[in-house]
Amino acid sequence: MIKVSVVGAKGRMGGNVVGAVNDAADTELALALDAGDDLTRITPENTDVVVEFTVPSVSLDNVLTLIGQGVDVVVGTTGWTDEKLDQVRTALASAPREDQAVFIAPNFAISAVLTDYFAGIAAKYFESAEVVEMHHPNKVDAPSGTAIHTAHTIAEARKAAGLAPVPDATETDGGSRGQVVDGIHVHAVRLRGLNAHEEVLLGNPGEQLVIRSDCFDRGSFMPGVLLAVRNVSSHPGLTIGLDNFLSL
Amino acid sequence: MIKVSVVGAKGRMGGNVVGAVNDAADTELALALDAGDDLTRITPENTDVVVEFTVPSVSLDNVLTLIGQGVDVVVGTTGWTDEKLDQVRTALASAPREDQAVFIAPNFAISAVLTDYFAGIAAKYFESAEVVEMHHPNKVDAPSGTAIHTAHTIAEARKAAGLAPVPDATETDGGSRGQVVDGIHVHAVRLRGLNAHEEVLLGNPGEQLVIRSDCFDRGSFMPGVLLAVRNVSSHPGLTIGLDNFLSL
Amino acid sequence: MIKVSVVGAKGRMGGNVVGAVNDAADTELALALDAGDDLTRITPENTDVVVEFTVPSVSLDNVLTLIGQGVDVVVGTTGWTDEKLDQVRTALASAPREDQAVFIAPNFAISAVLTDYFAGIAAKYFESAEVVEMHHPNKVDAPSGTAIHTAHTIAEARKAAGLAPVPDATETDGGSRGQVVDGIHVHAVRLRGLNAHEEVLLGNPGEQLVIRSDCFDRGSFMPGVLLAVRNVSSHPGLTIGLDNFLSL
Amino acid sequence: MIKVSVVGAKGRMGGNVVGAVNDAADTELALALDAGDDLTRITPENTDVVVEFTVPSVSLDNVLTLIGQGVDVVVGTTGWTDEKLDQVRTALASAPREDQAVFIAPNFAISAVLTDYFAGIAAKYFESAEVVEMHHPNKVDAPSGTAIHTAHTIAEARKAAGLAPVPDATETDGGSRGQVVDGIHVHAVRLRGLNAHEEVLLGNPGEQLVIRSDCFDRGSFMPGVLLAVRNVSSHPGLTIGLDNFLSL
Repeated sequence: MIKVSVVGAKGRMGGNVVGAVNDAADTELALALDAGDDLTRITPENTDVVVEFTVPSVSLDNVLTLIGQGVDVVVGTTGWTDEKLDQVRTALASAPREDQAVFIAPNFAISAVLTDYFAGIAAKYFESAEVVEMHHPNKVDAPSGTAIHTAHTIAEARKAAGLAPVPDATETDGGSRGQVVDGIHVHAVRLRGLNAHEEVLLGNPGEQLVIRSDCFDRGSFMPGVLLAVRNVSSHPGLTIGLDNFLSL
Repeated sequence: MIKVSVVGAKGRMGGNVVGAVNDAADTELALALDAGDDLTRITPENTDVVVEFTVPSVSLDNVLTLIGQGVDVVVGTTGWTDEKLDQVRTALASAPREDQAVFIAPNFAISAVLTDYFAGIAAKYFESAEVVEMHHPNKVDAPSGTAIHTAHTIAEARKAAGLAPVPDATETDGGSRGQVVDGIHVHAVRLRGLNAHEEVLLGNPGEQLVIRSDCFDRGSFMPGVLLAVRNVSSHPGLTIGLDNFLSL
Repeated sequence: MIKVSVVGAKGRMGGNVVGAVNDAADTELALALDAGDDLTRITPENTDVVVEFTVPSVSLDNVLTLIGQGVDVVVGTTGWTDEKLDQVRTALASAPREDQAVFIAPNFAISAVLTDYFAGIAAKYFESAEVVEMHHPNKVDAPSGTAIHTAHTIAEARKAAGLAPVPDATETDGGSRGQVVDGIHVHAVRLRGLNAHEEVLLGNPGEQLVIRSDCFDRGSFMPGVLLAVRNVSSHPGLTIGLDNFLSL
Repeated sequence: MIKVSVVGAKGRMGGNVVGAVNDAADTELALALDAGDDLTRITPENTDVVVEFTVPSVSLDNVLTLIGQGVDVVVGTTGWTDEKLDQVRTALASAPREDQAVFIAPNFAISAVLTDYFAGIAAKYFESAEVVEMHHPNKVDAPSGTAIHTAHTIAEARKAAGLAPVPDATETDGGSRGQVVDGIHVHAVRLRGLNAHEEVLLGNPGEQLVIRSDCFDRGSFMPGVLLAVRNVSSHPGLTIGLDNFLSL
């Protein structure tokens, strides 16, 4: 039984994590803390793994405190810069336990992680590739960080394989061809009713491969969070990306 | 039996029309002419309907000549301006036969015509609407004329229903949100292997309606061409758009 | 302001209706009743329209009582047989008010209603047609009532147009071709993560038309429920199907 | 420059291979033979690799003859039984050249091969999985061999991971749930206008992963045939499946 504490337990994601930890057969809830609570109540005695789902402005401080407490941490909060990640690495180097672990995932949805991974494998076999992401209309950034990441994944695979640029005879366009990320066209749709979806289109003469991830709600993150909770402690140091915990 | 002559019979579309006319049970091929052939060989004696599939630079002259010959004409060539259309109307006004007919279609694919028509009906019931068109990478214009037309169809339906603008909280975007046509975002994908495809996405809280047309090859135009051949003569004057021949 | 009472207010659907009625600008909540409550508290003085969302075993009795109270009723409960509908018609014939109205909808999702309606229009123009419905794996009936309805809609349109049966050279099949409803093949997918989705595929040589409805959650029914609330009173007698309230 | 002979050159697939071999920069056409032609004209002097695209009734004899001629063979003909494969292995054991190679692929479309491969990787991470294949209505077998193969791939991955059977509460069904292959439901759609398409649907709470292959025409096989032509000679013995030549 893995003892799991949740930081940000009153937030929408954190609340879902509390439920998922309670429901899973191999995890049990230790402490459920939120803003204002004392994080030093979390110790190796009551907690194996902490799940931190708060906001970018406080997440780094939380993680540094939790490292100091000697517990392993799974981080779901976004907004991590290289500088912040370096601070985490430094803190881990002088952590109480030698094999202490922190895991950060830009996206916990297994379908999204696999879409990115499969796009990277398939890209070198196709002449064309484009990315279409679709989200609810309240999202403020476009395209999504996940779509940008996938575009880079595709672009790197194409470069490694020595592929020519994607074919495109477009002469006149008023903006419909989307944003070009590292040579790959990325399109963002905003539609009421949708949540978070990504589609990778790969084309050859006479054939198309489509890889699509649909995240219908926050519940889509829970299998990935639990996967991280189960695997973080066997991966000492800082690990970034759920693909590290999948057998790919 | 409808006697059909084809002008532009050696072109890719015209060649397909010749085959479709030969295959259909209620049509028979009269004359198959191409560049350099004398169009005045086509007369009411040998021909009921002419299908003209050539290039924009010669199509107007062909149509005016054919009107003068006293036959009905189905035009598949694109590039028609308001000025050119007026010349056709003028010619029809003094045509040999009183009930003579010319039909021009921007798109002969029934799936594409219905997608546009359905989008217009559905648009007023949905908070969000976007258009994604997908074509082969040799296409020079983006977005497609059909997608622009569909965006206008949606926009007009929304205005008539008094809908607010589509919701969109996007604050930062490098171009991924596509081209805004009359308030509707239009995206163009270019992918080897595809031919001509259009997808209309309509969203409400908790639901989505998707209407999609796939034109896999030139054969997709033939049912629409035959529909026009069968209906043109009962619609005297100039008719534009295949929706006029569908029972909608 | 339309005064709306809700019967079944503690159920999952009823609870959503209460929220939708509170949120909409032109409706206000009158009474929210549930099992055990006295329905005769609902009167023309406090209520314009009642929304009934309970279970098939009690819905008929509820509706008959509400008709006797002299109010208009929108029914979301399923399980209506011809016999039950006749009882409603009889009750309406001797209702307190002459123009009293009851509305029953098999499906309140506008995207689902339009998918069915568009399938009926498009069917006569396509050689092939099949229906694929996709639901969560807790659903006990397959295929869905909506998919069966759509298959009948398509079949009737094909018959009216004199179309031949759909082409199908299948010689060996172990069940993969699905259930044949009135000549139309219907397939049912059950997948964790999905809610209620239907896809109509229509095919001609070289082209395909796809019409798809995605109902991601119960919220997808609310725009349709509000549409019914706003329209029921101007349609005296028994009306079945949301398409009657759409301008189609 | 790889010297390629084609057996079955007048067939539809063989004709496409001749074109692809002529078009590619690193291959040149040696002999183009068809039924009635003497296969012993093909020798190591004029040919590096033979592509055999004929019919099941003659393919084994052709391959055995070609092995005897001392050339490497890429086989696109279907209908290979274990017994036939054993005859190929036996012939290879006493072939003129020690490192002689034969390659047989059930499917040359890279998108189809990757769909099957990705389904195998992803299957263990999802609670639900179903397969939908879609083909032209002239196909006599349902479901397709490729879909059956994918169902087995998914089933084996689930078993290896110790997953429970897919959830399915269906109580009443008239056949819409499709054919159950090794515990996985497989659906077959037949639609005019389509060619060969396969969709794998994988579901978890709140999320879906879709992997789809579209083979629009015979041209979709050519990149795979060329990949095989380039790789067969470095894989002595009998190799089955294009995945062996992909860097997966």
